[in-house]
Amino acid sequence: MNSVIKLTRGVPATESFPTAQLVECAQAALTGDGAAVLQYGPAGGYPPLRALIAGEANVDKDRVVIAPGTLQLQDFCARVMIKPGDVAFVEEPTYDRTLTILRRAGAQVVGFPLSSDGSDVEAIESRLKRGERPALFYLVPDFQNPSGSVLSAEKRKRLAALAEEYNFWIIEDAPYRRLRYRGEAVPAFFDLAPHRVLQMSSYSKLISPALRVGYVVAPDSIARQLCKYAEDTYITPNYLDQAVVFEYLQRGWLLPHIAELRALYAPRLDAMLAALDQHVSGLGTWRKPDGGFFIGLTLNIGVSAETLLAKGKEADLLLTDGRGFFAGGGGDNFVRLPFCALTPTEIQSGIERLAAVARTLQ
Amino acid sequence: MNSVIKLTRGVPATESFPTAQLVECAQAALTGDGAAVLQYGPAGGYPPLRALIAGEANVDKDRVVIAPGTLQLQDFCARVMIKPGDVAFVEEPTYDRTLTILRRAGAQVVGFPLSSDGSDVEAIESRLKRGERPALFYLVPDFQNPSGSVLSAEKRKRLAALAEEYNFWIIEDAPYRRLRYRGEAVPAFFDLAPHRVLQMSSYSKLISPALRVGYVVAPDSIARQLCKYAEDTYITPNYLDQAVVFEYLQRGWLLPHIAELRALYAPRLDAMLAALDQHVSGLGTWRKPDGGFFIGLTLNIGVSAETLLAKGKEADLLLTDGRGFFAGGGGDNFVRLPFCALTPTEIQSGIERLAAVARTLQ
Repeated sequence: MNSVIKLTRGVPATESFPTAQLVECAQAALTGDGAAVLQYGPAGGYPPLRALIAGEANVDKDRVVIAPGTLQLQDFCARVMIKPGDVAFVEEPTYDRTLTILRRAGAQVVGFPLSSDGSDVEAIESRLKRGERPALFYLVPDFQNPSGSVLSAEKRKRLAALAEEYNFWIIEDAPYRRLRYRGEAVPAFFDLAPHRVLQMSSYSKLISPALRVGYVVAPDSIARQLCKYAEDTYITPNYLDQAVVFEYLQRGWLLPHIAELRALYAPRLDAMLAALDQHVSGLGTWRKPDGGFFIGLTLNIGVSAETLLAKGKEADLLLTDGRGFFAGGGGDNFVRLPFCALTPTEIQSGIERLAAVARTLQ
Repeated sequence: MNSVIKLTRGVPATESFPTAQLVECAQAALTGDGAAVLQYGPAGGYPPLRALIAGEANVDKDRVVIAPGTLQLQDFCARVMIKPGDVAFVEEPTYDRTLTILRRAGAQVVGFPLSSDGSDVEAIESRLKRGERPALFYLVPDFQNPSGSVLSAEKRKRLAALAEEYNFWIIEDAPYRRLRYRGEAVPAFFDLAPHRVLQMSSYSKLISPALRVGYVVAPDSIARQLCKYAEDTYITPNYLDQAVVFEYLQRGWLLPHIAELRALYAPRLDAMLAALDQHVSGLGTWRKPDGGFFIGLTLNIGVSAETLLAKGKEADLLLTDGRGFFAGGGGDNFVRLPFCALTPTEIQSGIERLAAVARTLQ
């Protein structure tokens, strides 16, 4: 019997967690600063970590808000920046959980189809020229979830200019930015338009996802509102997690750990690209990312997501419903392929099974 | 020069934190179960802690939802149980942060004035009879925040019967229930009407508030919706904090620690009651609680909250704005007096200063 292979969510490799180092960090955080780590304090985050992140971003510490993950920060942004009925722009496909967050806050979400270097800027500009005014544009510029695509430098510049001209915020969600396995980094949005961009990232993909530590670097006025909303939601965030991350960063352990992650994940990406070439040619098209967690695959078969998921399950292959990533409908034949938490052997089998399923549905 | 005395928020005594034990718990959690503690997992909470709390409450584990504090659980409840325009009943005064949570979700909040044994049940029943239907009734039955009052057993029974008859949920927020310094416990609401009551509590006042671990025991259908809302908000909660609490409970350390807290806090309550008798007689009326964190004081002077706070500040005394606790307006002359994080000497000075301020405003 085959064991089940999960091509579902973007989970880091459990074997990558630096557990022994985290024990040392937890001990140092509690013994060195227990009175602060265990007590109520500022909603914006554990002050030493806030100062460290602010220093890296070269901004005042009040512009940094640290929360239990960037998804919750997106929720705060949605509640603070969007009134029911407001428009939010997204890439299409985009991160499914963000669509839920935006819609919970009452946003009308408009998606712009992605090509390999990002959405079509002309299409975006023409909607703006017709008078549509989004409150914000949510993007994952680097190794996008779910497609793996990278927004080109040229398009970043043009979108930053549009944000200035038409007065909307850009949320740059960048959890995969530091997980580039080859090639050169594209300039961050934040550096192009620091007063128009909220840059979010987290340690979920770099250290551990259940140490819930995400952060945003935001313009002053927004950061203040986010802190207030955070305080009204949970008074004080999970300082122990934040203090553990602070100790980890202080010891200089993050950079070598990221190097280890790259060494672990790059062969998995390569294994998936090779398996796609070998088994899926002619059945669909896919991106060829240089980093991140995902490859987005579009099958060239007419199929309903229900059928695809059911047939996958029969073949011991768990897939995510592609429709969740599409703001405007569709996505039945879209498959997000996460590769980091699977061994090359599992990846090879998973893609073989997927190809077999797709062939039966042709 | 006097040092500033804070009679503001309900902060536990920093010297009470069991730091060395928590180091041991963090180490055990990470080394013993790191693969689970550090990885994405069920939104309802770290499974071993969920099972432990469910066992104590004698319910199925799916009825327990653990989140970063009960305030955030209240937010989830408000979003799941209240549609904009729905009515929510509360005691008056009530916890100021809950009022914010309810209003953010669009609730119309109706407050019922508290006497020493709870709100007037006839007044509540008459509004129900007139056709008003609250979605929920939020109460802090034991050592209420901010007043210190305890809801009598008789009134709990009658309110539980009204909840059944008129089909509304009761949220029993019970963070102070185990901090009774003398006298007998009153039956919990949850035990009177387990299918009508969501019982919330947390380890914020029992272990540490920045270990963000609160929980609710809820009816099945509600618990399922809360888990979904939690997953859509933060995917996975702060497992390390939850695992630390689990280890702490497993070792049998909570009960002796609560005994230590009682020994620390009871003299502080007594010091505050004595200081009130000595200095505030004739200037106001106050509850005489047998536990918890707060004494609610109503000054019998006509004063605006702004003036009271400003005069307090001049006397190096920080007070909380009493108006925040009153859903229906008023509260200018209400002072919440937290006593746990102050020494008896600070309490004595604080109440002396408060009395001096009140006299100048008579």
